[in-house]
Amino acid sequence: MSESIRILGIDPGLRITGFGVIDKTGNHLKYVSGGCIRTNGQLSLPQRLATILEGIAEVIAEHRPQQSAVEKIFVNVNPQSTLLLGQARGAAISALVSAGLPVAEYTALQVKQAVVGKGKAAKEQVQHMVVRLLSLPGSPSTDAADALACAICHAHGGQGLGALTTTGFRMRNGRLV
Amino acid sequence: MSESIRILGIDPGLRITGFGVIDKTGNHLKYVSGGCIRTNGQLSLPQRLATILEGIAEVIAEHRPQQSAVEKIFVNVNPQSTLLLGQARGAAISALVSAGLPVAEYTALQVKQAVVGKGKAAKEQVQHMVVRLLSLPGSPSTDAADALACAICHAHGGQGLGALTTTGFRMRNGRLV
Repeated sequence: MSESIRILGIDPGLRITGFGVIDKTGNHLKYVSGGCIRTNGQLSLPQRLATILEGIAEVIAEHRPQQSAVEKIFVNVNPQSTLLLGQARGAAISALVSAGLPVAEYTALQVKQAVVGKGKAAKEQVQHMVVRLLSLPGSPSTDAADALACAICHAHGGQGLGALTTTGFRMRNGRLV
Repeated sequence: MSESIRILGIDPGLRITGFGVIDKTGNHLKYVSGGCIRTNGQLSLPQRLATILEGIAEVIAEHRPQQSAVEKIFVNVNPQSTLLLGQARGAAISALVSAGLPVAEYTALQVKQAVVGKGKAAKEQVQHMVVRLLSLPGSPSTDAADALACAICHAHGGQGLGALTTTGFRMRNGRLV
């Protein structure tokens, strides 16, 4: 029997931060939790960052993950958006390191490659594959799906073999066959 | 006798984060501490953000400020730098809100206006005025000076009167007279 590792994936954003928790046992992945942390746009930036910090701290307290993975973000066409997103991501990583969690970073390309099998997948395809790979009864929100996808990417990469599929599934052109 | 308020000013940066602690009693400002938190460029981003978090937490634990002020940052010509600076600032604000401190934000223009009396002052002029306003025996480093200037700006703004000078001083063209 392989030991189980609990992974927390985070898709950071100032308005909505997605989170997803999965358990990895050998090659098997199991959904634990997923959702969004929403901040109030009426509040000041420090208050919104505090909401992100507290939200992630609550998820950690409830599910006690051992590892974490955060999606790397890219510069936006709007520099002001880049700055805001950067601060949200800084707060998210702060929550993780404050809890003593190791933090891995993956680009959107790596996440899509790991989950869908190709780097240029659409949002809906990522969502679809997250549902299949974790045998979810329904579709999670886009932000939660992205966070779960990031956790799945870490689970695969963590094997050191770059295994892209979950045991029992085979993929062709980004679809399960 | 006015009550004393201790203010922590932060000038965030991924490589160097400046901090400055001052006491404000009525119109009188007193230097308490100032310095820099340096991160190791060889480490991962999460590890560097952890250094900023821990550094600010240590300053708070040692000096127990009641209020905090952080310089607002602007988009850099290099979008990647904007992103990195944003994450550093997110971590700095996270450290402050985690400690339960209220966080005020000031633009570089506001800080210079409050300390030098004009928004277009050079770094050296800010440093010079910080030394004068806090009666320092020597010049603090640029980053510590910027953080102290931010704390001074908050001390002045905190009066709600927009008072720009410390009692006993008068300013003309950004110089004490």
